[in-house]
Amino acid sequence: MTEENTEIKYTVHFEPDNIDIVVSAEANLMEAAVAAGVHINASCGGAGVCGTCNVIIKRGQVESTRTDKISEHDYKKGFRQACKSRIMSNLIVEIPATSKLEKAVLSREELLSSCALASGWKFDPPVKKAYLELTPPAMEDNTSDLSRLLKGLKQQSGYDKVSVDSDILYELADILRKDDWSVTVTLLEDSNNSFKLINIEPGDTRAKNYTLVFDIGTTAVRGQLLDLNRGRMLAQGIDYNRQISYGEDVISRIAWAQKQDGMEKLQKAVVATINDMIKNLAKRANIDISDIAHIVFAANTVMTHLLLGLNPKYLRLSPYVPTANYLPLIKAHKTGIEVADSVYLYSLPCVASYVGGDIVSGILGTGIYQKDKLTLYIDIGTNGEIVIGNRDWMVTAACSAGPTFEGGGIKHGMIATSGAIEGFDVDARTYEPLITTIDNAKPKGICGSGLINIGAKLLDKGVIDQNGKFNTGLLNRRIREGAHGFEYVLAYGAETQTYKDIVLTETDIANLIRSKAAMYAGYQTLLQSVDKKFINLEQVIIAGTFGNNINIENAITIGLLPDIPRNRFLFVGNGSLLGARLSAFSRDLLNEGRKISSMMTNLELSENSLFMDNYIAALFLPHTDGGEFPSVRLGGK
Amino acid sequence: MTEENTEIKYTVHFEPDNIDIVVSAEANLMEAAVAAGVHINASCGGAGVCGTCNVIIKRGQVESTRTDKISEHDYKKGFRQACKSRIMSNLIVEIPATSKLEKAVLSREELLSSCALASGWKFDPPVKKAYLELTPPAMEDNTSDLSRLLKGLKQQSGYDKVSVDSDILYELADILRKDDWSVTVTLLEDSNNSFKLINIEPGDTRAKNYTLVFDIGTTAVRGQLLDLNRGRMLAQGIDYNRQISYGEDVISRIAWAQKQDGMEKLQKAVVATINDMIKNLAKRANIDISDIAHIVFAANTVMTHLLLGLNPKYLRLSPYVPTANYLPLIKAHKTGIEVADSVYLYSLPCVASYVGGDIVSGILGTGIYQKDKLTLYIDIGTNGEIVIGNRDWMVTAACSAGPTFEGGGIKHGMIATSGAIEGFDVDARTYEPLITTIDNAKPKGICGSGLINIGAKLLDKGVIDQNGKFNTGLLNRRIREGAHGFEYVLAYGAETQTYKDIVLTETDIANLIRSKAAMYAGYQTLLQSVDKKFINLEQVIIAGTFGNNINIENAITIGLLPDIPRNRFLFVGNGSLLGARLSAFSRDLLNEGRKISSMMTNLELSENSLFMDNYIAALFLPHTDGGEFPSVRLGGK
Repeated sequence: MTEENTEIKYTVHFEPDNIDIVVSAEANLMEAAVAAGVHINASCGGAGVCGTCNVIIKRGQVESTRTDKISEHDYKKGFRQACKSRIMSNLIVEIPATSKLEKAVLSREELLSSCALASGWKFDPPVKKAYLELTPPAMEDNTSDLSRLLKGLKQQSGYDKVSVDSDILYELADILRKDDWSVTVTLLEDSNNSFKLINIEPGDTRAKNYTLVFDIGTTAVRGQLLDLNRGRMLAQGIDYNRQISYGEDVISRIAWAQKQDGMEKLQKAVVATINDMIKNLAKRANIDISDIAHIVFAANTVMTHLLLGLNPKYLRLSPYVPTANYLPLIKAHKTGIEVADSVYLYSLPCVASYVGGDIVSGILGTGIYQKDKLTLYIDIGTNGEIVIGNRDWMVTAACSAGPTFEGGGIKHGMIATSGAIEGFDVDARTYEPLITTIDNAKPKGICGSGLINIGAKLLDKGVIDQNGKFNTGLLNRRIREGAHGFEYVLAYGAETQTYKDIVLTETDIANLIRSKAAMYAGYQTLLQSVDKKFINLEQVIIAGTFGNNINIENAITIGLLPDIPRNRFLFVGNGSLLGARLSAFSRDLLNEGRKISSMMTNLELSENSLFMDNYIAALFLPHTDGGEFPSVRLGGK
Repeated sequence: MTEENTEIKYTVHFEPDNIDIVVSAEANLMEAAVAAGVHINASCGGAGVCGTCNVIIKRGQVESTRTDKISEHDYKKGFRQACKSRIMSNLIVEIPATSKLEKAVLSREELLSSCALASGWKFDPPVKKAYLELTPPAMEDNTSDLSRLLKGLKQQSGYDKVSVDSDILYELADILRKDDWSVTVTLLEDSNNSFKLINIEPGDTRAKNYTLVFDIGTTAVRGQLLDLNRGRMLAQGIDYNRQISYGEDVISRIAWAQKQDGMEKLQKAVVATINDMIKNLAKRANIDISDIAHIVFAANTVMTHLLLGLNPKYLRLSPYVPTANYLPLIKAHKTGIEVADSVYLYSLPCVASYVGGDIVSGILGTGIYQKDKLTLYIDIGTNGEIVIGNRDWMVTAACSAGPTFEGGGIKHGMIATSGAIEGFDVDARTYEPLITTIDNAKPKGICGSGLINIGAKLLDKGVIDQNGKFNTGLLNRRIREGAHGFEYVLAYGAETQTYKDIVLTETDIANLIRSKAAMYAGYQTLLQSVDKKFINLEQVIIAGTFGNNINIENAITIGLLPDIPRNRFLFVGNGSLLGARLSAFSRDLLNEGRKISSMMTNLELSENSLFMDNYIAALFLPHTDGGEFPSVRLGGK
């Protein structure tokens, strides 16, 4: 169980953020900060010419070139340009306020678990802009506009053998002449590790180079707008996937797609969701949508098919075959996404019908494929996905958890936005609730992480039993009989945004039990398939759609997570979006996606009898086999 | 002036066609026949398995494998499979009637000058079809449809690293399952010498693999439909370019393009012409338009821009810059051409604003770039183009001859179709005409080659003088004064298709003189630029839009062609279409187009004062300087 990687590593501690990251010896300090989610300004994108990325080395050694951007005096005091410094020992680095004006690139949860991040990558986005000042044509040099452009691109920026998107030709002549032969071209790495010229603009537009990344889930779509010049996130958003009106899970979506115009409706629904989000993100970041140069998305296989307009019919018919796992670059406007015509969509590759690009993206972002540690990766969403493995091998499976953890199938369920009840406890004597909500707003509903916390606390305090049934003998009128059986009132209408009581019903609890049982049976079956036990896991990385966090203890109490030492758990937030974001920042990582997809072995659980046995055994809180959860002591016993 | 190429060459004589071709030692006999335009059946496309390409070696040696397709008896008699035979000496080859059922691939004029053909190329079209029988998916092998297809393509046909056109994905799943996992894929060589998967069809459709080639001229569009399996031409056609209603020459088209909706109208006009021709060609060849896999076109730079929807604005403004000379592959349907969505347009590369892909195509087809002989290549059309050079260097120029040689600006001019007056003589005593027409139909008008013949004979017999004015003292009422000056009646209304008199006017003759003067001044100026004289030319290849042929003697008499030994002239018919056709048959040649374009040095005549002097000196029949045409003796003197 020891890390067997013999490469030399150093720990860098950043102040005042108080964040550590472990990196390889001689790594670039700027990139270490980006990976750690510590923001340092770098107006020039790391070229060393702007002098905005100054840091103070408080302890340890860096190898650094002094440029005229740092005075002799400051240099002696330890000031260095982060982009010009290589890490030669453990370090303590202070980032002065002047270098810290912008938002962090990684979210708080990701920072907390920054040791669970892909390493060894360079900040080198697959989309580039290059500014060219071309020599105007003359009688003795009247080659074509395109030849002149490509020659300038080679001479001034070193890009050779660039392929040309024919769409750029239509305005080429006028654009070249608009700003006196000064232009900015956009280049996109295509599948062959070579570049394609996808856009041309008059003048110098390098300062505007943005990418959108999306995690397209069955229930919710999450997106971020990124500035590719500075590796920072400008805005992020979440919205329900409008396909929900055509069914809550992937199976019902596939069924819908087979109806007359079904495919078209489903595609339009998710595209409308994305288009609204793009407008919103651009508005909040105060950028023009036309300056977005690229889109990266990660989605499960069904969502990937539906977004691109591919019929998912065969995904649900044995032997469950996707149309394509590795998708060629597709023009975004072909799908109906409203961005510039030059923008291509990059899809994280899928593995199988129920193991999609979202999970590949999570493995990519968390770097599991790079490490020796035997890791269980869990992506908790409507389509629950599991991976077990390390740098040498990986097995994967999908178990349909249902939309429970995104608030679906729960009477007052909702996605993790403002007003969702997340924190919960019960007074052991009065059985009165203690709730906290996202943004401390008036309660509006229950999100996935809230549901886990509520379930665990109600169980622990004896309000429900291990079958998920209410103890109706307790003296609190919050436990009452509703229209469809017993329920517990979390908040009365007088206190809520909806002016209605927010309750948790026995049906909700039954759904929670089914969902957590499916997840647990999934890990169990996958482990058994490789002849391992839970205790062999050196690391459990939890990704998913929860709000701020997941309470590990509570998740174990209800049997959603295995009962192993708590320090082996890491929560990385939305792993799919993390991987998509890192793919947008790094060509290396983008190209690793395919490698990850090809090294995964998929186990089909839907026809697996062991999985069914494990599932039935898990339909109890925490489990029918108490030996599986030795440390869970209900009621403080 | 001797051929310095030391490679061993053999002459192959084909009977009963009575055609010779010079080829490299060890060349494939089938390919030699295709290059010579001699048709031999080959149902299997040259794989040696059908036995339909049997020929008889009457003299000389081939190296050939005997398969069971030829009996021992026949083998002893000299029968060989052409596709399995390599040429080891000079040969006399007889093609039995059983192997000669189909139309020849090269036209009569091309055959007559088959020594003026590119050599050394393989029959290896840039578009291929491959038939695959894939293993159906199973639970233990449920990779995606696309991965299965690409794996099968690699294993069964050897194509690796194939890129995928994303448009094929939409129907992929259903097509694979339609004929039990048997499919035919279409592959197109893309710009990097690698292949792109552009189409997929259920079952085995290899037998249907067609290409269209077009020469898109300012006045006329010429097209051919080719069968890529057998290297044969199935149908050909000619039609007026409907852009004519927007001006007769390229300059007026460029002007039109600057008007409101001008570009769109011009593009639609040429595309409508092409679409009608495609329907007609497919109908006559009895094939489905949906089985056309590829389109190759050659056109002058302005026509290339207008077809693709690129504004030609800067082509007529000094320093005369095209948007692009080397054009990326463009989907045909993007231009409005009505073929399958999978079809790409390949454009022969252009050189400069007035030296286009048509001329590059002609140089390619005639192989001038491969040979030592100092050659003058003349493409006589509305936009007259000239090349002088050999394998080491080439200079080129365009001189706006006007539409005269395509019948434009001539009162009763027409393109070279049925009813055009082509052959002409005048009775020296009565001045009565002797005319012949294309297809021996009733006269309808005068085509370009007819105009040359008429001009020469009227001059020779003294009906017009060297200024192009009628000798009104002659006693024949065919010489009369019309509404706009003197004219000569070629045919009276009673004999014509139009029921109107067909005449040649003095204005027509003035236009002829201007056009021939522009051409002649063009060659002269270009030769002077490289310090050569007409007598240094070892070969003059004439391409153009004439009907069956051009009468060299008559062309010299009026001063259109230089007065050098007649055996140095070769007429290759439509050189542009020839090169386009060979590009459709051979990847090698298709890739040579770019090389040719880049080795050409363009001389701009429009701002050249020497050209203007030469032009003015040539405004006489045959020339103001009689010393330029020593052998021309008018009136038999």
